[in-house]
Amino acid sequence: MARLNLKLLLFLLIAVVSCTLVTYIFTCGHPTSSHTSFIHRLKESSSPESRGKLYEELDCSINGMYHISCRKEGKEVFVPFSFLEKYYEVYGKLAKSKGHEQFEWSHSYSKVFKPTTRYNSSGMFMYFSNYNVEVRDRVKCISATEGVPVSTQWEASGYYYPVQVAQYGLSHYSKNLSDRPPKRKILEDGNLVTAKWQVPKGASVKRNYDNEKFTHVLEFNSYDSPGISLKLRQGTDLVLSFDLRLLSMNGSLTIFLEDRDRSTIFPVSFVCSPVLIHVLNSSGSYSTNYGLGSCQNWNQLTRDLHVDLVKGHVLSGRGKKLSKTKLRIHHLIVKGYGQLDNLTLASSNHMGMFYSSADWLVRHQDTSGGWPIGVKRKIASGKADLDPGWYSAMGQGQAMSLLIRAYYRSGKPHYLEAALKGMKPFSISSTEGGVRAYFMNQYPWYEEYPTVPPSFVLNGFIYSLIGLYDVVSLAPQNQVGDAQLLFDQGMHSLKKLLPLFDTGSGTVYDLRHFSLGLAPNIARWDYHSTHINQLLLLSTIDSDPILTNVAGRWISYMSGKRAAHN
Amino acid sequence: MARLNLKLLLFLLIAVVSCTLVTYIFTCGHPTSSHTSFIHRLKESSSPESRGKLYEELDCSINGMYHISCRKEGKEVFVPFSFLEKYYEVYGKLAKSKGHEQFEWSHSYSKVFKPTTRYNSSGMFMYFSNYNVEVRDRVKCISATEGVPVSTQWEASGYYYPVQVAQYGLSHYSKNLSDRPPKRKILEDGNLVTAKWQVPKGASVKRNYDNEKFTHVLEFNSYDSPGISLKLRQGTDLVLSFDLRLLSMNGSLTIFLEDRDRSTIFPVSFVCSPVLIHVLNSSGSYSTNYGLGSCQNWNQLTRDLHVDLVKGHVLSGRGKKLSKTKLRIHHLIVKGYGQLDNLTLASSNHMGMFYSSADWLVRHQDTSGGWPIGVKRKIASGKADLDPGWYSAMGQGQAMSLLIRAYYRSGKPHYLEAALKGMKPFSISSTEGGVRAYFMNQYPWYEEYPTVPPSFVLNGFIYSLIGLYDVVSLAPQNQVGDAQLLFDQGMHSLKKLLPLFDTGSGTVYDLRHFSLGLAPNIARWDYHSTHINQLLLLSTIDSDPILTNVAGRWISYMSGKRAAHN
Repeated sequence: MARLNLKLLLFLLIAVVSCTLVTYIFTCGHPTSSHTSFIHRLKESSSPESRGKLYEELDCSINGMYHISCRKEGKEVFVPFSFLEKYYEVYGKLAKSKGHEQFEWSHSYSKVFKPTTRYNSSGMFMYFSNYNVEVRDRVKCISATEGVPVSTQWEASGYYYPVQVAQYGLSHYSKNLSDRPPKRKILEDGNLVTAKWQVPKGASVKRNYDNEKFTHVLEFNSYDSPGISLKLRQGTDLVLSFDLRLLSMNGSLTIFLEDRDRSTIFPVSFVCSPVLIHVLNSSGSYSTNYGLGSCQNWNQLTRDLHVDLVKGHVLSGRGKKLSKTKLRIHHLIVKGYGQLDNLTLASSNHMGMFYSSADWLVRHQDTSGGWPIGVKRKIASGKADLDPGWYSAMGQGQAMSLLIRAYYRSGKPHYLEAALKGMKPFSISSTEGGVRAYFMNQYPWYEEYPTVPPSFVLNGFIYSLIGLYDVVSLAPQNQVGDAQLLFDQGMHSLKKLLPLFDTGSGTVYDLRHFSLGLAPNIARWDYHSTHINQLLLLSTIDSDPILTNVAGRWISYMSGKRAAHN
Repeated sequence: MARLNLKLLLFLLIAVVSCTLVTYIFTCGHPTSSHTSFIHRLKESSSPESRGKLYEELDCSINGMYHISCRKEGKEVFVPFSFLEKYYEVYGKLAKSKGHEQFEWSHSYSKVFKPTTRYNSSGMFMYFSNYNVEVRDRVKCISATEGVPVSTQWEASGYYYPVQVAQYGLSHYSKNLSDRPPKRKILEDGNLVTAKWQVPKGASVKRNYDNEKFTHVLEFNSYDSPGISLKLRQGTDLVLSFDLRLLSMNGSLTIFLEDRDRSTIFPVSFVCSPVLIHVLNSSGSYSTNYGLGSCQNWNQLTRDLHVDLVKGHVLSGRGKKLSKTKLRIHHLIVKGYGQLDNLTLASSNHMGMFYSSADWLVRHQDTSGGWPIGVKRKIASGKADLDPGWYSAMGQGQAMSLLIRAYYRSGKPHYLEAALKGMKPFSISSTEGGVRAYFMNQYPWYEEYPTVPPSFVLNGFIYSLIGLYDVVSLAPQNQVGDAQLLFDQGMHSLKKLLPLFDTGSGTVYDLRHFSLGLAPNIARWDYHSTHINQLLLLSTIDSDPILTNVAGRWISYMSGKRAAHN
């Protein structure tokens, strides 16, 4: 090693000079940082052993198909993460940990909730207290006539999707149990509590006895004035409930919301209109209007005004960014001729929203016990479409989980009745409009999408089982009908077929590769974790070790473990 | 950017000086290489824009579970391949391509052979002409009494494994068709061709008429001499055939092989002994001995002497490295009292080896048509063991493929008979000693390992189908019996169940996760490519698009493609 290569030495010196003089120090290292820079490494490794410890560019040929630029340092080859994240769909981000920067590699982006107690049918529904169904992009808004979300998932114009309605209700039922009790303040009930309305000249308010409601209500008429307003005390509560009846077609109730970040005020109105949601965005005036439909009857509403405003923002192209904590109700105005009662402001009203869902489900159940879904559902490009009017075992099950809770909480028999009727499609073949399919003519499966041939969606099937279980648990024993049998049969199928969903590194969402001859439909990580969460729930009510064993293996896949190869 | 950080400058200069003066140039870059070194990069990027393009060490936290050292350069993070190769089991190596070094990343290590013509039952068997069954580690040696390989796969003492015997024969049948015709030279037949034996004093050779063979043979007696030797002309042919009968217990035929690399001579002997293979390794003498069993009868042998020597080397701990091309036969010696005939040296004798297998299969078929396997086979730690005496559908099928070819080539009816009898276990349930199982009581499956519950091994099943197909193709039409039905039923099952082997990124070897409740048994890449090769073969005789579609998808997995997730 005593031989000096003068040409190399010359090159090196030129390189160093150009580095120090032309590009300033910053290009050459951060020796003061807690991390070791390249220059630092050179110093450290200034021994003959470190020969070859150079950092070089190196072409990487990927399966002989394309090339990327790698790095080489000694015998180690370094591969750029920008390649890996696409090739393997993994996730990485720079983050601070204990004061120093590190790169966090995540195999999956999803989480598992390990249950600590036995599942209780009258308790929270899984981890749905974490759900915010109404803020999802595929929810157009909460209907002011129905009080439930309107989906745009498979039809942009919007429709009521029983699964979503039930999940909305179950999430609020669960939030009611997990959140602290709501703050609640009655502002006006026409009787004991009266608000200080600002009544302009020519307008009027009075409190009359209403023959329909059997109580006193506020009657207002704004005539030609700009409206009767009520200024509210500053606060962060945004859930407003009220009973409203508009006796003139120009009647409305408008809530003015102040965005304290932007010092702007946004109105949200409830108006006489058949239109679900409409954003007025003409010169100088911006307003989100919700149609009340038949406004001349009493309408009972519970509104999360933050959600109501955001949905208008999205519709008008303003985006969904609007901090809930920076929003407050500034004042409200009633216009036209109408009646108002039980005007109540609260931090939340989960049970109100829950019962809105329950009531929607009671109203929209058909005589076959099903909640028909009014949109076409395309599974696998024309191979197994569902025409409007189909039932979903998942929809039935989730509705049953919700209705039986409504019965449990309210004691009202019509909720029980609806929950029990919801079982009916489980006994009818998917070829005849029901939700029951068979795997190889032997193992019954309740189909989230009752396609022909069947699709065997896993998570929807398990939700339907939980619905059956909830009915068995909370319905009077002499009325549960087939629920126990249907649940037992389903659990038997689940345990038998569960392994077919295991890919050795994740799960498949359904068995379409088996039944439709397509490529396997790999479950993305959030469905994968749903599978696991569902199995863990079932494992608290069924001690068969297959449930915990499979769940455990599936959990391990989320951090990159794979089943062994031979 | 005009501000100079003196501390940094100082540090940099010290680093550079230590680099240039202490560790010589070699540590600091290869500027003459076609690749850009780090120093080179510094020079190139000597502009303020390149700030942040520094190369730093960076901790990578893998799923929050452990840490590795990554590199950071600008916004790109580089991950060491030594981590990736373990985490993902991918393969990488530095290689020269068009004169410059590159790193070759391979998702899999296996190859697919796309068939160019329709599969022909009398032609080559798949890509078995590439197989070298006898050199596999799990082959102890080629038995000198049976002329077929002895397996140590599931029992170290060694046993005859019908699958391996058949594969040995099929590979030689295929090599016979793919290789050029052998060079072949008769050295001594006791009649027309006589060799120049060096007969020492007291020893004798004569050529007598043999009443058993109906031909003249060489009779030798070495008495007390060191043996009668024959020097061979220099050549590279290593396949020696001979008929040998040792009439004294101390009789032997020894071939002296010269390793021209090491200028060493290694003897391989065929001796009177019941011991399969024995390595003598005492002071100064080293020899590999093959026992002839009943040596006093005529033994007809065809030996690949390279293989014979290597197996001795492995047994004696010398390892298997021994270049075939550097080996030649130096001379051979007969000792004791015995007879020799048809001594023939050839470059290969594939058909001889093929018929050795066929004859072994004829000799060892039992009355049920099966080739019982004499070792216990443990599938999944005690969950579904097979006791000695089990049949393998794969063994049956491969034997049938071989025997029907032997019939086709020789016209000898006993090969046909054995091939047809080989079908019998396909109709007998694996619970009753046969190989027939059912998936969900509906789809018949011919079991490579007829476990109870069934294991549904894919590749063995398809080999069994090919065996049935070969019988249908080459047996006289009025004798094929159930072969067509068994084949059709099997193909029906295959097409139905094939998707269950698809993991979306590879295949499973079997369905043990379904039937035994274990983790999926992922097929390693060579089995995965076997699956594909088998499907491609079937696709040449069955036009159902499922075969090519699935094969195509499975091929794509080998270069990292995965089925889509939802």
